[in-house]
Amino acid sequence: MQRVIWTILAAFVMAIAFGPVVIPWLKRMKFGQTIYDLGPESHKKKQGIPTMGGIIFAVPALIAAFAFSGEGRTDFLLMAVVCALGFGLIGFVDDFIKVKLKRSLGLTPKQKLVPQIILSAGLAFWAYKHSLIGDSLIVPFFGSEWNLGWAYIPVMMFILVGVVNSANLLDGLDGLCGGCSMIDFASMSLICLLMARAYPENSANLLNIAIFCAAMAGALLGFLRFNFYPAGVFMGDVGSFFIGGALAGACLTTRLSLLLPVIAFAMLVSSLSDIIQISYFKITHGKRVFRMAPLHHHFELSGMPETRVVIMYYIVTLLLCLVALLGFVA
Amino acid sequence: MQRVIWTILAAFVMAIAFGPVVIPWLKRMKFGQTIYDLGPESHKKKQGIPTMGGIIFAVPALIAAFAFSGEGRTDFLLMAVVCALGFGLIGFVDDFIKVKLKRSLGLTPKQKLVPQIILSAGLAFWAYKHSLIGDSLIVPFFGSEWNLGWAYIPVMMFILVGVVNSANLLDGLDGLCGGCSMIDFASMSLICLLMARAYPENSANLLNIAIFCAAMAGALLGFLRFNFYPAGVFMGDVGSFFIGGALAGACLTTRLSLLLPVIAFAMLVSSLSDIIQISYFKITHGKRVFRMAPLHHHFELSGMPETRVVIMYYIVTLLLCLVALLGFVA
Repeated sequence: MQRVIWTILAAFVMAIAFGPVVIPWLKRMKFGQTIYDLGPESHKKKQGIPTMGGIIFAVPALIAAFAFSGEGRTDFLLMAVVCALGFGLIGFVDDFIKVKLKRSLGLTPKQKLVPQIILSAGLAFWAYKHSLIGDSLIVPFFGSEWNLGWAYIPVMMFILVGVVNSANLLDGLDGLCGGCSMIDFASMSLICLLMARAYPENSANLLNIAIFCAAMAGALLGFLRFNFYPAGVFMGDVGSFFIGGALAGACLTTRLSLLLPVIAFAMLVSSLSDIIQISYFKITHGKRVFRMAPLHHHFELSGMPETRVVIMYYIVTLLLCLVALLGFVA
Repeated sequence: MQRVIWTILAAFVMAIAFGPVVIPWLKRMKFGQTIYDLGPESHKKKQGIPTMGGIIFAVPALIAAFAFSGEGRTDFLLMAVVCALGFGLIGFVDDFIKVKLKRSLGLTPKQKLVPQIILSAGLAFWAYKHSLIGDSLIVPFFGSEWNLGWAYIPVMMFILVGVVNSANLLDGLDGLCGGCSMIDFASMSLICLLMARAYPENSANLLNIAIFCAAMAGALLGFLRFNFYPAGVFMGDVGSFFIGGALAGACLTTRLSLLLPVIAFAMLVSSLSDIIQISYFKITHGKRVFRMAPLHHHFELSGMPETRVVIMYYIVTLLLCLVALLGFVA
């Protein structure tokens, strides 16, 4: 557990040191955010704040994860890193097109979805064939497992693509996605530590995922220093896709995907509120359930200050992570 | 450890439920804050926001601590509760006078200090005579103890009065004192859990302090919902003195007072910056080290937005608490 704490501290220090180098560079390269025309009015002032800040935490997280991992098997770590880097790369391409072609929406939805599906299919198949992962998911709180058979592959593809796009949707207020996912990674790290005790035959792999999650938590804590309200940098799609990929990768390897609706509840409601809003709008030909989707914009337009919405999301995430921990502690 | 999590959740739920009852009542009773004339200009708009919100977390924390504690010895818990309640009461009197007599500064410094000294003398003597506490302090990271002999009593009095007044000084920005101390209590709770394993002969007492700290952390998390920027309620002296007393009480019983400069670093710098500012001003007949003391006002007046200062304090506190944990984990 000392190693986990050192990982957090190292990743944090790197992110804090990296920020003041990367932010001016992003500004010089004119990677400023083109604010989405459909967002709330009050967000117009955010025009010109640099985006693609995700590299401020992605690079330190990867360095710290590799530096502090090691002992024994590293195949889980490799899978999680491929998942985070793969989705992060798709986000990077999207950001790059957004900024360079001045198209506020970047890639078209289809252009984003196709590589995501291909990547998730590859990852799901890799996990399915892996001797320590296979076709079953852990059912938390019930101490049982859910065998999916061949259905594991489409289910896991749906989860991977879902988490990544939900993380992307959650990234709508200063510090929202970074802070909530920092809490997720911190609790996932603790859960992996506890699981490593419960599954001694696979402890090396589980400890490496604990280190990976700790590296993400530490790096995100450093990033929050620059991204909290009022934000000096946005993470961009490269950031939110990397976060989604890293979280999904940690769950894919540890078979804890069924924990995602609990720990990543903030991401889930972002997606669900968006889906509900769009479906209802189409069915009723123009009516809305929320003032604006995703849900955090609804709260904002209901008169709640941005910072208060963000802290509410943090609090709910923290409590749900504590609930998730209940399934793993004595 | 499950019991600790349940304590956090219960205290949180009570605080969240208690807030919407207490805040309108405080408003009706006209317990609005009279903003200290010497604070930054930008704080003038905070005039009229209700104060004495400390009861929103103090009452739920005490209820949760009593409800979830119990097994075996409860003398440590009793001492910590007396410490928190005693100092909280002094704060309450101060707030009450401030509001009812419309004196912005409440009690005079001497009127505040005398009861604090009397209370801390009683508590220090009680701990000194206690068979499981005595005259020594644990030296973290070195695995040793520091025997103070009779000097334990004045040293501990200094620590108690120091922590309580430092917590009070830290309470200058929305969510600052509440959030930082929430992190302190969460890590103290974890440290007590780890210590309970290391000292099995005293585990019942240490577990009860873990529960006490968890109750404080959960209740403060609920309070932050109302106190984070832009604050809808302030904790007042009743709140900051209660926090200081609870933290000091947890350290008094567990003999972990030497950990305070690490985990309560934010409180320490608030006090130190105030002392440095005043001393330097007196020595140089009018020169200042900081733009304004305590230090968080200096950052604010240097152009850092209030929320950014608060999140910086949270981040530093969290990292230092992780460092403190390094001394207790394998």
